[in-house]
Amino acid sequence: MPQPDDSEDKPVRARTMAEIAALAGVAESTVSRALAGSERVSEETRERIRKLVQESGYRINSRARSLRTRRSRTIEVVIGISETNRQHFSDPFFSQIVAAIADALAENDYDLLLSRARPWDDVEGADAIASNRADGVIIIGQGREPEKLAEYAASRRNVVVWGADIPDRSYPVVGSDNLLGGRLVARRLLAQGRRRLVFLGDIRHVEIGLRHRGCMEEMTSAGAAPDQTLTLSMPFDSESAYGATRELFRGGIWHDAVFAASDVLAVAAMQALSDLGVRVPEDVSVIGYDDIALAAYVSPALTTIRQDTVAGGRALVENLLTLLDGGEARDAILPTELIVRRSCGGS
Amino acid sequence: MPQPDDSEDKPVRARTMAEIAALAGVAESTVSRALAGSERVSEETRERIRKLVQESGYRINSRARSLRTRRSRTIEVVIGISETNRQHFSDPFFSQIVAAIADALAENDYDLLLSRARPWDDVEGADAIASNRADGVIIIGQGREPEKLAEYAASRRNVVVWGADIPDRSYPVVGSDNLLGGRLVARRLLAQGRRRLVFLGDIRHVEIGLRHRGCMEEMTSAGAAPDQTLTLSMPFDSESAYGATRELFRGGIWHDAVFAASDVLAVAAMQALSDLGVRVPEDVSVIGYDDIALAAYVSPALTTIRQDTVAGGRALVENLLTLLDGGEARDAILPTELIVRRSCGGS
Repeated sequence: MPQPDDSEDKPVRARTMAEIAALAGVAESTVSRALAGSERVSEETRERIRKLVQESGYRINSRARSLRTRRSRTIEVVIGISETNRQHFSDPFFSQIVAAIADALAENDYDLLLSRARPWDDVEGADAIASNRADGVIIIGQGREPEKLAEYAASRRNVVVWGADIPDRSYPVVGSDNLLGGRLVARRLLAQGRRRLVFLGDIRHVEIGLRHRGCMEEMTSAGAAPDQTLTLSMPFDSESAYGATRELFRGGIWHDAVFAASDVLAVAAMQALSDLGVRVPEDVSVIGYDDIALAAYVSPALTTIRQDTVAGGRALVENLLTLLDGGEARDAILPTELIVRRSCGGS
Repeated sequence: MPQPDDSEDKPVRARTMAEIAALAGVAESTVSRALAGSERVSEETRERIRKLVQESGYRINSRARSLRTRRSRTIEVVIGISETNRQHFSDPFFSQIVAAIADALAENDYDLLLSRARPWDDVEGADAIASNRADGVIIIGQGREPEKLAEYAASRRNVVVWGADIPDRSYPVVGSDNLLGGRLVARRLLAQGRRRLVFLGDIRHVEIGLRHRGCMEEMTSAGAAPDQTLTLSMPFDSESAYGATRELFRGGIWHDAVFAASDVLAVAAMQALSDLGVRVPEDVSVIGYDDIALAAYVSPALTTIRQDTVAGGRALVENLLTLLDGGEARDAILPTELIVRRSCGGS
C-alpha cells in the first residue's frame, strides 16, 4: 500500500543541520554560525535561520552529538604563566587573542576551557586531553622552555601554538614574524637618528628573543655599534618596566631610544621617562610590540608592531579543527606591520 | 590470626587527600592548593607535599572523582557582550577578574569554561548547567537587562554574579559599592573646584547607572547645578570615548571635568583632550573607574576608583562553591576607594 503523501498538510520537519541549511539555502557552516549568534552572518540571515529552526522543531543537541562522537567538543586554551608572573594574563594582548579564539570556537560550536597551567607542568590534572576534558589544546606562547613544549606536542596531533616559526618544533604555529618585527623597529629608530638603544624584555622567551635579535642585527648592519645597546631583562609587568627605566635614566639621558617587548612595558617606560622630565619623542623615542587597543590612546600615542589577534585567533582554531578532522594544519605567519604614532616621530 | 605488622618494612601508603594532609601536617585545602601550584602555599611546603605524594604513590584523580559525584568540576564564567560590543572582553578589567577567578578555581581543583554568550540568550547550547558542562555559573556584570538575569537565576542555586546590590535580585553578588564610588568621584571633583561635569558611559548598565547616580546626587547636594552636567552614552570601547570627547571639546573648554565609567574610556578621553591641546588636569580633571594595571602608567597618571579584582574573584568562587555544597552564600561589597593621581590634582 502506498504511503499517503502528506507533504502539503504538515510543515517540513528538518532533522539535521544539513536539512536546515538546504531549507535556508545556505552552507551548513552558516547555520552553525547563525545559531551561535555570530556577527559574521547578517542579522537578516540569522533571523531567517532562527525561524526555520523554530518552525521545524529541529534542536541541535551538541551534548548528544559529543557523546556519539566521544568528543568533549571543548578546546583548552593555555596561557602559561608559571615561568613569569601572575600579571601575565592581565596583559591586554592575551585577553584580545583569547577573545578572538572564543569567537572562532563559538562559531564552530566548541566550548573554551581556560587554563593557566601548562600541560607539561607538574600540576595534577593539568593535561586536559589526557583526562578527556578537551579534544585539543591551543597554547599561547612558546615560553622559555620550547624544548618541553616540543616534547609534549611530539606525541599528540591535537596541539597548536601561538608563537614563532622555530626549528625542532613538533606542532603548527600561528604568529607574527618576530624577527621582521625587530628589524622594522630598528629601521624606524635609525631613520629617526636613534642609535643608543635600550631593549626591555625577557629575551629567553622565544618570541622576545627573536624580536631582540632582529633589531640587533639590523642596527649592527647599519653600523650602529651594538655595544651601545643595553638589554634589560624583566618580566611582563608594568612595575618592572617602570622601575628599570627610571633607574636607568635617573642619572641623565645617554640612551635615545627604548624598544619594549610589549606595549604594556612600553607604556610604563614612557611614564617613567615623563616622571623624570625626559620628553618622548623629543629626547627619547619609544616603540612597543602588540598594538593593544590602548596603544593609540596613551599620550604620546605609541608606535608599535601590530599583531593581528583576530586573524590569529581564527587561524589557530581553523588549524586545530583541521587536525581533529584528520587534515593537515598550515603554519600561519601573520602580516607584521609597524604602526607609526607620536612616540617615535609620527604625527 | 593477627595481621603481620609490616609498618616498618613498607612506606606509608596514603590513599586520600586527608591522609596526605595528615602526613604533611597541614590542612586538606593546603594540599589541594599545593598540588595546583598555588603561590599561596610556600615553595617549601609545596615541595614537601609533592615529595609526600610521590613517595606515597597517591594520585588525585579529579576526573574519577567527578564521575563519582556526578559533577563536571567545571565552572562557567560568562562575560556577556551581546548588549554592547566585541571590544568588551578586551577591557583589562575583565581579564583581571577572570584571571583572579581562574586562580581561585585552580586552587579548588575546578576547571574554568569561558563563555561570551549569556545563558538566557537565544543561543543554542548556551546554558552550560542545563547541559551538564558546568556545575555552576559566574556571571560578570548585570548588564542592561537585570530582570532577565534575575529570572534566569531564580530557579537555580548555582549562579553568582559580579555586580551591584540591587533590589529584586535572586542571586548573591560580589562587587564594588558603585553608588559610593560615584559619590567619591563627585567629592574629589568638587574639592578641586570642578562643577561642569561630563559623564561618559552607558547608564542603562546597572553598575554604570549607580556610579552616575551617586555622582549626580553628591553634586546636587553640594549645590552644583545638575543641568550643567552632560551625560554621553556610549559603549565600552576607546574609539567611542575618543570621538565623543573630541567632538564635545572641539568648540572650546566649557566643561571642566570628565568622569568616565571605566578606565579604558578615561584614557581615550584624556588622549582626545591632549590632541586638542586641552591640558589635564590644569584645564579639565579626569577620573576613571576600575584601577586597571595601566591606570598608574598613563600620562598623566589616572585618578580612579579601585575595584579589587583579586578579592572579588576569590569571593565569587568561595560563594559559588559554598552554594554547591548546600551552604548559604554571602553578598560581598568590596572596599571602594578613590586612588588620587595626577589627572585630578594628585602629585
